[in-house]
Amino acid sequence: MFPEPIQKFIEIFSKLPSIGQRQATRLAFYLTRRPELNQNLNSSLTALAQDLKICQQCFLPFKRNGVDLCPICHNKEREQKIICLVEKEIDAFSIEKTREFKGTYHILGNLIDPSDPKSYESLKIDWLEKRIKNFPDKTAEEIIIALNPTTDGDLTAMYLERRLKNLSKKMTRLGRGLPTGGELEFADEETIKGSFEGRH
Amino acid sequence: MFPEPIQKFIEIFSKLPSIGQRQATRLAFYLTRRPELNQNLNSSLTALAQDLKICQQCFLPFKRNGVDLCPICHNKEREQKIICLVEKEIDAFSIEKTREFKGTYHILGNLIDPSDPKSYESLKIDWLEKRIKNFPDKTAEEIIIALNPTTDGDLTAMYLERRLKNLSKKMTRLGRGLPTGGELEFADEETIKGSFEGRH
Repeated sequence: MFPEPIQKFIEIFSKLPSIGQRQATRLAFYLTRRPELNQNLNSSLTALAQDLKICQQCFLPFKRNGVDLCPICHNKEREQKIICLVEKEIDAFSIEKTREFKGTYHILGNLIDPSDPKSYESLKIDWLEKRIKNFPDKTAEEIIIALNPTTDGDLTAMYLERRLKNLSKKMTRLGRGLPTGGELEFADEETIKGSFEGRH
Repeated sequence: MFPEPIQKFIEIFSKLPSIGQRQATRLAFYLTRRPELNQNLNSSLTALAQDLKICQQCFLPFKRNGVDLCPICHNKEREQKIICLVEKEIDAFSIEKTREFKGTYHILGNLIDPSDPKSYESLKIDWLEKRIKNFPDKTAEEIIIALNPTTDGDLTAMYLERRLKNLSKKMTRLGRGLPTGGELEFADEETIKGSFEGRH
């Protein structure tokens, strides 16, 4: 229906997450009228592919700088034996934004799906175990399971606790409670229970 | 907050229509994990910028082929003196899909906005007038105003009728009526009136 370059663009871009046929089509025609945007778009895509490196230790992406480890894993002033497990890269960045946490991370990449064995392997727990066994006493000080307090998050947390408990002196989960701006009146039971348990 | 290549991607992509901060961020991390997609994305963007040409006569995009006119304007078997005005390129392609229309197009590019003088210039009516004045009798057989039957569409249609009526033997607008699958019970007044006016 459309000229081939437009059709090809739509095919490729509509496969990206949350971009469907319609949005890809709208984008195609928008960009067709603005060929001057092409260079910036291309260079930012290329930078993503070429200027980023994935940390060999925690799997966080960082700007390529000749070092194999990300700035967090490479920083001797971080508490290297405290490891915070997160589902997604952006979760780690959200925590970093608070400037409170002084440990390191392990990016799981996904939550487990009991119907899919691959979802267990992709957590890279083997790598995490190897990383901990490289510590002088082969034990982490603390493993923090910083997953979303959802059903899938809880399921994954239980699996991780079972798998890793012998590799750390302490295993903790993030506290539940009332979020900033939240109201008791509209909070669900689990949230209220959590806020009581976490009271201090 | 994020590594520079990711930040830069989000800045650039979040400016595209209907892509906001959140979607651009999700995309950035999705692509960070899949550098192998980069080549396809880049080449499809480049093809949009380099392999498409805009028709000098009707402003439809077409695959570059050494000719200045698009396949429709270049096709002597099309009725070159019947010109269908559409708002967007995709409207022309939607009409072409029906294989019913044998004339040519003029892509206006936008609808008029009375508060914005530029929205009148960008319709490229000067080009359309020049195009018609190049006909042997300096008159089009028919100008079809194929704009959306909306308030802005109607406003634009009125402006075009006023501006172009001396350049064409006939000026028509697309018929209104019940769309396929539509129901009288839920149709608005204008639609019902239009369907009566267009009865045959």
